[in-house]
Amino acid sequence: MPPEPATPAAAVRIVLVEPSHPGNIGAAARAMKTMGFDELVLVRPERFPDPQAQWRAAGAEDVVDSARVVDDLDEAIADCGWVVGTSARARRVPWPVETAEQFAARLADEGLGGRPAAILFGRETSGLSNEELNRCNLHVVIPAHPDYSSLNLAMAVQVVCYELHKPMADAESHERRPESHWDRRLASAREMDGFYRHLEEVLVAIDFHDPEAPRQTLTRLRRLFNRVRADATEVAILRGVLKHVEQAIQRNP
Amino acid sequence: MPPEPATPAAAVRIVLVEPSHPGNIGAAARAMKTMGFDELVLVRPERFPDPQAQWRAAGAEDVVDSARVVDDLDEAIADCGWVVGTSARARRVPWPVETAEQFAARLADEGLGGRPAAILFGRETSGLSNEELNRCNLHVVIPAHPDYSSLNLAMAVQVVCYELHKPMADAESHERRPESHWDRRLASAREMDGFYRHLEEVLVAIDFHDPEAPRQTLTRLRRLFNRVRADATEVAILRGVLKHVEQAIQRNP
Repeated sequence: MPPEPATPAAAVRIVLVEPSHPGNIGAAARAMKTMGFDELVLVRPERFPDPQAQWRAAGAEDVVDSARVVDDLDEAIADCGWVVGTSARARRVPWPVETAEQFAARLADEGLGGRPAAILFGRETSGLSNEELNRCNLHVVIPAHPDYSSLNLAMAVQVVCYELHKPMADAESHERRPESHWDRRLASAREMDGFYRHLEEVLVAIDFHDPEAPRQTLTRLRRLFNRVRADATEVAILRGVLKHVEQAIQRNP
Repeated sequence: MPPEPATPAAAVRIVLVEPSHPGNIGAAARAMKTMGFDELVLVRPERFPDPQAQWRAAGAEDVVDSARVVDDLDEAIADCGWVVGTSARARRVPWPVETAEQFAARLADEGLGGRPAAILFGRETSGLSNEELNRCNLHVVIPAHPDYSSLNLAMAVQVVCYELHKPMADAESHERRPESHWDRRLASAREMDGFYRHLEEVLVAIDFHDPEAPRQTLTRLRRLFNRVRADATEVAILRGVLKHVEQAIQRNP
């Protein structure tokens, strides 16, 4: 039994079964690498190696160069725990089916059990055969539009690798979620109150706002600025604008 | 006011800014169509139309054929409510950032506000410029591996369209969600542009903003107001405030 892989990424193997176009092999390699995967196995590729594969890899040539070519699906999956077949169509023999997202969540949850997981992608034209699909523990589908659900081979690799990577990215970046990328702290309610008082004074000074007949204008402006969750610098800029308005009016009395 | 789109899919517009490779245009069209989207706008494509675009479309030639070519980003987004920029890098001026999945959930939740949503994808080599990113309400990122996060252009379109489609696929069997609780339609990109021009004039008039030394103030204000997703009434109120400031200054010359 091989040792437990250090990271899940190191234990996901992408298997392309009889790909016809070398360009798709390169594009699949690039798609894998963008999501941190690098183990590519090719079962009876029609043309490989091929300059088209190198060209489309565009920075992921290392994944192409280290791709393993095998004659037989068995060789590609023999040491694997999970064997998962991607499939666009419903098949004659019903099989356990999950979406790519559900399978990614399951893998993140259950782990790999100490063995690589193989994800099989079929031929550009005809996908995986029934015999090949029957070798799988699970079939994975990519939800697509019913009128035209034919993803390009490398696109399908991209979406599946993206879903497999997502739970890892979530786990890695808890401390740097988009919210906390902000460079300034949010304005406090007290700072916002000061801004609203200042805003009302200026609106009165420019004859925009009549405190006796407010007509909801101030409420609408308050709703607007409350919605935006301004940071402290932004409130300082807005206060600066209000101050300059007051000075411009007073300069010309 | 344009009629409310019949389906969310009909109101998502994919905008490719200066794509160099026609093959990527075709591959993007195919990626869109697999997820039920068909509105493609090309800003200054290097080569289009081109047989490569047709060839890579592989069944999505209709999306390629109906693609609209424009000279200017403004033309592509003028009527849009949401303008969303895809970006791989962190930028100097932080902007609201969400993952593709978060944005898809938000769109499913909040609805489109009666206007199309434009998703901008930048050049193959350099992405969107800072100026283009500043035009956006929101930046969307695709979580990728930090060592090699360079998704091919069409791959990025695939992943974003896949995420946008997912909630629709989930919801298809359920009742349709209410589009939005908001009482007014969102301001369009054109209306926001008019507001920003007006704002800049007033900031100059009150000596707050020196166009020769902008010091990012206008960018920060743009970011603030882009973030808030103002409705048309709110923009009218803000324009009214600006007008009253101008009158108050002129009244006392």
